[in-house]
Amino acid sequence: MVESTQRQSATTEPGTLRPLDQQGQRDAESRLDPITGQWTIFAPHRGNRPDEFVQTGETIYRQLECPFCSGNEASTPPAVWVGKIDDGLCRTSTDESKAVDETATDWSVRVVPNRYPAVDRPQSYSPRQTESPLFSSGPIVGGHEVFIESRQHVTSLTQLDLSEVQLTFLAYRDRLKFWRTYPGISYISIFKNVGEKAGASLRHCHSQLIATDQIPSSIETSITRMDRHRAEMGCCLQCDLIRAEQKAKRRIVWRDDTVVAFCPFASRLPMLLRITTQQHQAHFEELDDLAIESVSRLVYRSVSWLEAIRPGTPYNICLSTKPPGAGDSTDSFHWSIDLFPRMTQLAGFEWSSGCMINPVLPETAAASYRRIAIAEDPRTIS
Amino acid sequence: MVESTQRQSATTEPGTLRPLDQQGQRDAESRLDPITGQWTIFAPHRGNRPDEFVQTGETIYRQLECPFCSGNEASTPPAVWVGKIDDGLCRTSTDESKAVDETATDWSVRVVPNRYPAVDRPQSYSPRQTESPLFSSGPIVGGHEVFIESRQHVTSLTQLDLSEVQLTFLAYRDRLKFWRTYPGISYISIFKNVGEKAGASLRHCHSQLIATDQIPSSIETSITRMDRHRAEMGCCLQCDLIRAEQKAKRRIVWRDDTVVAFCPFASRLPMLLRITTQQHQAHFEELDDLAIESVSRLVYRSVSWLEAIRPGTPYNICLSTKPPGAGDSTDSFHWSIDLFPRMTQLAGFEWSSGCMINPVLPETAAASYRRIAIAEDPRTIS
Repeated sequence: MVESTQRQSATTEPGTLRPLDQQGQRDAESRLDPITGQWTIFAPHRGNRPDEFVQTGETIYRQLECPFCSGNEASTPPAVWVGKIDDGLCRTSTDESKAVDETATDWSVRVVPNRYPAVDRPQSYSPRQTESPLFSSGPIVGGHEVFIESRQHVTSLTQLDLSEVQLTFLAYRDRLKFWRTYPGISYISIFKNVGEKAGASLRHCHSQLIATDQIPSSIETSITRMDRHRAEMGCCLQCDLIRAEQKAKRRIVWRDDTVVAFCPFASRLPMLLRITTQQHQAHFEELDDLAIESVSRLVYRSVSWLEAIRPGTPYNICLSTKPPGAGDSTDSFHWSIDLFPRMTQLAGFEWSSGCMINPVLPETAAASYRRIAIAEDPRTIS
Repeated sequence: MVESTQRQSATTEPGTLRPLDQQGQRDAESRLDPITGQWTIFAPHRGNRPDEFVQTGETIYRQLECPFCSGNEASTPPAVWVGKIDDGLCRTSTDESKAVDETATDWSVRVVPNRYPAVDRPQSYSPRQTESPLFSSGPIVGGHEVFIESRQHVTSLTQLDLSEVQLTFLAYRDRLKFWRTYPGISYISIFKNVGEKAGASLRHCHSQLIATDQIPSSIETSITRMDRHRAEMGCCLQCDLIRAEQKAKRRIVWRDDTVVAFCPFASRLPMLLRITTQQHQAHFEELDDLAIESVSRLVYRSVSWLEAIRPGTPYNICLSTKPPGAGDSTDSFHWSIDLFPRMTQLAGFEWSSGCMINPVLPETAAASYRRIAIAEDPRTIS
């Protein structure tokens, strides 16, 4: 059970976006490339954020006072969500009238606005401006939050208790629910960067949420394809894929009645592992407590497998849930989490074509994960 | 004038694809992700290629006998194109009946098949196979070549004479012309990776060409958008953009009557510089010798500006020309070259959404390039 308090309800009127903390400069802007149809977010102020990873030929730890450690709560903007574990149990409260004591150091997982946000929360929405018809741009609005996953200065979620990991996943669910109903929000991404090569600037175990008023064009494409499959076949594409993968067996790493982990047939990156529920579910944030428990345990185990295969490897975890701007139907989208180490560099071909060259077949990747999973739990599918 | 000899004409019947050299295993495969609509190339054998960059906390130079240096011609497959400079002049020959002497060490620029190709040249085309309707895959066919830009072990094109750089650009033109008429080829990418973080595995100054039988989905999207603009506005989108950029001035770095260099309004990456011809031209390979001279000089200068701003930075150069599979019309595509340093890491948000977060506005980038360009040549536009 989780002690969680949603602060915004006390400070923000629905429909009026409060300004971000003092430190967050309001210069984020997005621009449309008329050739590719892709929007890019410009966030010049993000160059100011602290960076533990300095490039001197080797990656070293710069001795910073870690802003995420307990005792340093004043280094971050005030929390928007706080969860505690007592006696090994998560305590939960959805009583949003409770104020979060900003000086409190009694927390297990803490969610705070990012001090160097990629997107701003302006006072009010303004329509997109255009310098000329060829130069479309506008403020990119929404939220950028950090999930601080531990009071301690640990760097991997496998150093945490499973209950702490679970608490973070409950925070994901709550913050997705919050942003999903926020006026104007169309897309929400939750992601974790571990290691410099995966885009991290701080080591303390954390993940992030970015909510924006734009659905990225590649996400639009996926939604259109999933909608079309549903219309033609009468079934969710991801559900069909999961069934086909289970029939093919070779790329399945682990499954039980609730969840499944597999290396997708056309994985863009080496060793990519996808985790989702067997049952159709468009929204991660609609999972019940039991499903959240299963998912967080499987993510925890997946990271431990990856760390066993490639110790110290940088990696990302990305959570995909049906975007709020993609309509109300829950038929044709299926939430998932992708875990992938960063083993390769994007070279000129991949940048210019968008086509990845993957040196590891997903069948090979799945076999590697299965070897570790079986050693750990012989009931794993082989 | 360039001494160039197209070997394939002697060894290959048009329409029959000859097998690759012995070392090139024939296991490249591409697979379709039914959710995103993106094809990924799987090339497990590329893990075997030599790598000068070894990760031991710092990047070091592993003492390999460089396969690209003169004297080591036998380390690569036989050349498919050879160019020489005599008395400071490029000598050219289009007499394809001339055989290339494979033991010859008398060359300035040499083009060879990649020993570890991302795509194969099979004996004949076979239709794409599918494991099931959800698992579309097939051999990916085409060519993968390396442009060895110097006999000497130099690591930057700014260490070369301008005539050598020009010779490489003439090689690009010839090889694009060769692959454009090759049966089944739909897409050709020319790119340069400099530094480990830009995807290079060898330091010796080189670039690459990949020709495939598939147009990547993101390129398809750009072509559709450019066609639509042409249909609606009666003009090439890139031509309109160049005019608009020149009117706006702020993102222009350099221009003369033939060529222009600018930082595009919605650049996906920091410090991205785009080079193209002022006059409409769909195909790079249709540029005349004078235009090639202007383009190669501007690319040479652009790299020198980047090296002055960020010494030793890894970077990519990507050449975009109208894909052979995109129809015969030359109205709605406009060739270009993008130069971009690799200053940022793709983090989880960018991977999952496809939306870049760029910390450097193109106006800022253009001003940085202009400062260097003006110091070098005061006639530069300021």
